[in-house]
Amino acid sequence: MTREIVLAARPQGVPKESDFAVRDVDDAEPAEGQVLVRNVFVSVDPYMRGRMSGIRTYVDPYDVGSPIDGGAVGRVVESRHAGFAAGDWVLSRLGWREHGVAEGDHVRKLDPAAAPPSTALGVLGMPGLTAWVGLVDIGRVEAGETIYVSGAAGAVGSIAAQIAKQKGLRVIGSAGTDEKVEWLTSLGVEAFDYRSTRVRDALKDGIDVCFDNVGGEQLEAAISALRPFGRVVACGAIARYNDERAEPGPRNMSLVVTNRLRIEGFIVVDHMQRFPTFIAEVGPWVRDGTVQYRETIVEGLERVPAAFAGLFEGANIGKMLVRVGPDD
Amino acid sequence: MTREIVLAARPQGVPKESDFAVRDVDDAEPAEGQVLVRNVFVSVDPYMRGRMSGIRTYVDPYDVGSPIDGGAVGRVVESRHAGFAAGDWVLSRLGWREHGVAEGDHVRKLDPAAAPPSTALGVLGMPGLTAWVGLVDIGRVEAGETIYVSGAAGAVGSIAAQIAKQKGLRVIGSAGTDEKVEWLTSLGVEAFDYRSTRVRDALKDGIDVCFDNVGGEQLEAAISALRPFGRVVACGAIARYNDERAEPGPRNMSLVVTNRLRIEGFIVVDHMQRFPTFIAEVGPWVRDGTVQYRETIVEGLERVPAAFAGLFEGANIGKMLVRVGPDD
Repeated sequence: MTREIVLAARPQGVPKESDFAVRDVDDAEPAEGQVLVRNVFVSVDPYMRGRMSGIRTYVDPYDVGSPIDGGAVGRVVESRHAGFAAGDWVLSRLGWREHGVAEGDHVRKLDPAAAPPSTALGVLGMPGLTAWVGLVDIGRVEAGETIYVSGAAGAVGSIAAQIAKQKGLRVIGSAGTDEKVEWLTSLGVEAFDYRSTRVRDALKDGIDVCFDNVGGEQLEAAISALRPFGRVVACGAIARYNDERAEPGPRNMSLVVTNRLRIEGFIVVDHMQRFPTFIAEVGPWVRDGTVQYRETIVEGLERVPAAFAGLFEGANIGKMLVRVGPDD
Repeated sequence: MTREIVLAARPQGVPKESDFAVRDVDDAEPAEGQVLVRNVFVSVDPYMRGRMSGIRTYVDPYDVGSPIDGGAVGRVVESRHAGFAAGDWVLSRLGWREHGVAEGDHVRKLDPAAAPPSTALGVLGMPGLTAWVGLVDIGRVEAGETIYVSGAAGAVGSIAAQIAKQKGLRVIGSAGTDEKVEWLTSLGVEAFDYRSTRVRDALKDGIDVCFDNVGGEQLEAAISALRPFGRVVACGAIARYNDERAEPGPRNMSLVVTNRLRIEGFIVVDHMQRFPTFIAEVGPWVRDGTVQYRETIVEGLERVPAAFAGLFEGANIGKMLVRVGPDD
């Protein structure tokens, strides 16, 4: 027997514990070409909130009563695929469960000597690629520019802020606790607490790019601060994901014309072909400590829903992970 | 003696007659390198509203008590520049006046045999270039796509709609009178009256591009209708220019991320280097009637302010011009 989390009900507003259930399931046997994986870390990500709403977007919604798939890192228990052996660390889409069977062609083997396996869910995984693609391909940032990163202590924001520093930008970042602000400041980010400082005051010198993870009022303030030909990298809107009704948007959209602004959204899965270039550039920075990363690790499968809900309260510094089993 | 219009007061909301004054001024003498021009047509354009507000944007504001410069077409009365002779038709920035002196290097000679001189203020001038740059360089439209042009019977919109047709797009356009809808329909545009049809109903099949001249609710409806990787060519927001306070923006900005949308503003003066390419492509279409244009011509310098105010009530079909003198 093993355990998995299923969606028990579609959340209304902020996700609650009762929207999820832990379910015991029989152990599965891998068929030819498959691997049986024991998860060690499972990922909780803001984008999953959208999939819980039942609205079809760029990914299928989760079904009520079905398990929640998503990024996970674990170890192969049994392999029926020539590319894997028992004990291998792998990245999969097995999601919120302790054990699962995956097609060998759909998982990626990780080298634990090259980087801690959990980084495949964070700085060297989708959040890191999101940060890099957003800066390079969407924002097209240039040395000497000023960037504002909203939610700068999060999984994506903290990497975006540091890559931007490496690329020669002045970086301003918002966060919601003293600890986050201190960490960002230690990284060379001009960090401020959006609970005590107004975003528009923090951006009064003007910016060239906004890497937006938050949306809402932070986006409006950023639009007002953008210089001519400024860009908004529209990455996420965590302030909005739990809204039950549409809230009014930025009141300053006329600036888009006047200041020739570009607001462009993107989804990292459209940019997977950029992964090798991203790893070639950012991998060495992570290895030598130029780019730092933090993880907020919650323990135990049954606490996955709480960890997920915590994303919307800013409970994480860096990448939020849940450890569902030991390394060995 | 000659006459000019000056800004008498900064308009509050919709411009009123009393915001302007007709002033008698002495005739000016051209110095070496200058030309004295008698205007025939002066242009009234929505962007001028912003300059009346006194807020510095991409162009300097008009000063209270000073004349209103802008596009004008007229004939040279006296030339002290080797490139011009008395009688030549020229395009200038002399604006809302009957006579004026301009640097010869700042005016462009027009060939009345190639196209009616008034078209230099419309289909073959800034409005036409705006339409073409917006489609080609900002929207990057492709054959087979569907475009929505808001304000499709206006100076820019009517040309954008027709160029889009020529480029193989399905074109949907909004307008505010039966006559405008009939004209657009005759051009092959799927036109609707936004006063009787909801924009979202008109766009229910989905669109790939929105060429937005209107802003406000029309922009919000267009964002909801955009397919993945859709674009908004943010050209203007005539519904908003007279707002005295900022109105709430689109409530559906989260779709920018989900559907990977791009909202990009532009100002035609940044794209003047594209003028020759534009003329090479669109000039022949205008000459052979493939692209049609209409002009709404008001008579008399003293009626310039009323013509200008009329822009915000949709009083024009195609390009709004004021004739301030005879051709000959």
